[in-house]
Amino acid sequence: MVSQVTANPPAEIANLRDNVRPIDWQDGRLRLLDQRRLPEAEDYLYADSCPDVVAAISDMVVRGAPAIGIAAAYGVVFAAAAAYAKHSGDWCKHMQPALAALAGSRPTAVNLSWALQRMTQLFADIDDDPVPVLAAAAVKLQNEDLAANYKMGALGAAVLTPGCGVLTHCNAGSLATAGFGTALGVIRYAVATARISQVYVSETRPWLQGARLTLWELLRDEIPATLVTDGSSASLMATGRIQWLIIGADRIAANGDVANKIGTYTHAVCARHHQLRVMVVAPCATIDTHLDCGAEIPIEHRAGSEVACIGDHRLAPPAAAVFNPVFDVTPAALVDVLVTERGLIWQPDTAKIRALLALS
Amino acid sequence: MVSQVTANPPAEIANLRDNVRPIDWQDGRLRLLDQRRLPEAEDYLYADSCPDVVAAISDMVVRGAPAIGIAAAYGVVFAAAAAYAKHSGDWCKHMQPALAALAGSRPTAVNLSWALQRMTQLFADIDDDPVPVLAAAAVKLQNEDLAANYKMGALGAAVLTPGCGVLTHCNAGSLATAGFGTALGVIRYAVATARISQVYVSETRPWLQGARLTLWELLRDEIPATLVTDGSSASLMATGRIQWLIIGADRIAANGDVANKIGTYTHAVCARHHQLRVMVVAPCATIDTHLDCGAEIPIEHRAGSEVACIGDHRLAPPAAAVFNPVFDVTPAALVDVLVTERGLIWQPDTAKIRALLALS
Repeated sequence: MVSQVTANPPAEIANLRDNVRPIDWQDGRLRLLDQRRLPEAEDYLYADSCPDVVAAISDMVVRGAPAIGIAAAYGVVFAAAAAYAKHSGDWCKHMQPALAALAGSRPTAVNLSWALQRMTQLFADIDDDPVPVLAAAAVKLQNEDLAANYKMGALGAAVLTPGCGVLTHCNAGSLATAGFGTALGVIRYAVATARISQVYVSETRPWLQGARLTLWELLRDEIPATLVTDGSSASLMATGRIQWLIIGADRIAANGDVANKIGTYTHAVCARHHQLRVMVVAPCATIDTHLDCGAEIPIEHRAGSEVACIGDHRLAPPAAAVFNPVFDVTPAALVDVLVTERGLIWQPDTAKIRALLALS
Repeated sequence: MVSQVTANPPAEIANLRDNVRPIDWQDGRLRLLDQRRLPEAEDYLYADSCPDVVAAISDMVVRGAPAIGIAAAYGVVFAAAAAYAKHSGDWCKHMQPALAALAGSRPTAVNLSWALQRMTQLFADIDDDPVPVLAAAAVKLQNEDLAANYKMGALGAAVLTPGCGVLTHCNAGSLATAGFGTALGVIRYAVATARISQVYVSETRPWLQGARLTLWELLRDEIPATLVTDGSSASLMATGRIQWLIIGADRIAANGDVANKIGTYTHAVCARHHQLRVMVVAPCATIDTHLDCGAEIPIEHRAGSEVACIGDHRLAPPAAAVFNPVFDVTPAALVDVLVTERGLIWQPDTAKIRALLALS
C-alpha cells in the first residue's frame, strides 16, 4: 500500500540512534508498541480495524497526545475501508459511529480531535476508494509530527550552552509522538551536539512514565540518564548538577500557562527558586487559543487506587482518601522559553503567542 | 518488673485516641510493632536480648530517630542482664561489645548515641543487679520522649488558627517516637482542638513512609487524612486548601538548617512560593550544635533498587542509574517556626537556637 514514516533527521544528528516507533503503518496494518508493558517487555500489538484502534487508545497501549492523534488518523483509515467495503457509493455517510468512538476514546487529548478534523476534511474530495488517500494522509500527518519534533529539537538545543545537566518529567519522547519526541527531542538533539551531558528523569508518580518509559527510551539511545524520585528535585537542583528543566505540555492556554503531568509545576517552582531555567517543548497544535489562561484548563482527576496501589501491591491503607489530579498548571511566568515548530518564544505571553500563531 | 510507659496526655486532648506503641516494655520483654509490614499487617515481634534489639533496629522493625534511641536503651538493659548473669562482680566491664553493636545498628541516628550515653552514665553508681536501675532508666527515657511530644504538640498547635489544612511528609508520628509523635503530635493536638480540619500526607518515595505509616496512624485515630503524591505539593498548595507544612527533623544544624526525609526541601520551597508557613517539630536532642550549618550534615545515599523496584515489581529498566539521597536539607530561612519541648523559635537562627539550648 503506502510507505511508512520517512521523515529523516537533520544531518547534524544523523548518527543519533532513535528507532523507537510506537506507531508504525506496515502494509495496511498498524503496529503498536504496548506501552503498558514497558520496561519489563517490549511487546507489539497489531490493529486491523477501527475498534482495535479505539481499544488501543482507551487501554493506553498508545499514550501521549500527539501519538493518540496519529493512531486515531489510522483508525479513520480502517473505518473508511470497512464502510467502503459495504457501501461503496456513500461510504462517508456511514462513518459517524466510528468517528464518535475514536473521539471518545480518551477525554483530554486535544490532538485527537485535531487529527480527526484533518482526516474528515478530505472526505468530500474523494471519488472512489478512500483508503489510498486517507492512508497517505495519515502517514503525512505522522511524518509532519516527526518533522516538527526534529525542528523543535534543533531550535531548543540551540539555546543550551555546552555540557548542561537537565531534568525532565513524565514522557514527552518518541513514545508520546511519531518519534524523537518534544522535550526528549530537544534532549536527544542536545546530547548529540554535546550541549547536554547528563539527563535526570523524575519517576512521575503515580503512573511512573519517567521511570518506565523515559528511562527506557534514553538507555536505548545510550544517553546518560539518572532516575530520581519526584520529591528529589529541589535537592538535585541545590547540588548545581542541572541548569534546565525541559518538559512537554498537554495543553497550553492562550497566555502561555502550561498544563502538563502532575509534578511539573512543583519542579518549575523549585527551578525558579534555584535560578534554573524552564523550557516547554510542544507543537503549536497544543496551544488552545479558546482558553485565556490556565485556570480554565479542566484538570482530570483519576481513581485513588492509582496512587494507593502498584499492581497488586498495596501502598496505603484501603480506607485512605486520595487527591490524584493527573495534570497541574505551570503559570507562564515560570516558563523561560516555549519551543514550537514555528519558533521560540522567550517569556511567553498572550501577545507573543498570538503573533507566533499568526505566522503562516 | 517495672511499669511501662505512663506519661499522660494533657487534659485538653484526653479524649484523643492514640494507643499506638511501637515500643512497649512488658514484664521484661520488649514488644515491637513491625513497621516493615504496615499497612498490610499489624504484627508485633518480641525482643528478649540485646542482639534481638540490634537486629530490630538494623532491619527497620523500629525506625525514626527517637524510637531507635528508646529501643537501644532497652537493648542496654538486656545486655546488662546477660553480663550480670555471667559476671556479677564486674558486669560493666563486659558491656563493650553489646554497646558497640547497638551504636552501629544504624548509621545516622543521633538519638541512638545520645540514649546510649544516658544509659552508660548510670553504670558507675550501680552496686548490685543493674537490671532494675537500667530498666527504670529506659522507661524514664521513653516517658520523657512521650512527655516532650505532648509538650511540643501543645506548643505547635497553639500557633495555628482554627480550621487549617496542613501537609506533612514522611512519618514523624507515634511510630517514630515513644508515641504521639513530633509533627504528628502537633497535628493530633491541633485536630483535637479544632485548629486543623484536614491533613494531606505526601507518600514519601521511595520508602513510602507517608502512604504506609502516617496514613495508617491517622486513619486509626480517625483524623481526616488524604494521600497525595510527592510531586502534587505545588498543585495542592495552589488550590488554597492548606496553610502549613508541618514536618519532623532528623538532624538540625546550629543555625537551624534542617535535614529531613528527601522531599521535605521541595515541599518547603513550594510552601514559600505559595506564602504558606513551615513548622519543624523536633526535640532539642535533634539539634546538633557541632555542625554550623546544613552543608555539614552528611547525607546518606542508598541503593538505587529502592527507587527502581517496589517489592518484586520493577519500575525502571535494570540498567538505570539512580540518584537516591535519603535526606535533603531545608535552609533555616525557609523555616517559619521550630517547635521544641523547651519552646518555639520563630525564624530560627544560630543566636536564637543557642539561647534556647542555654535555658536549663
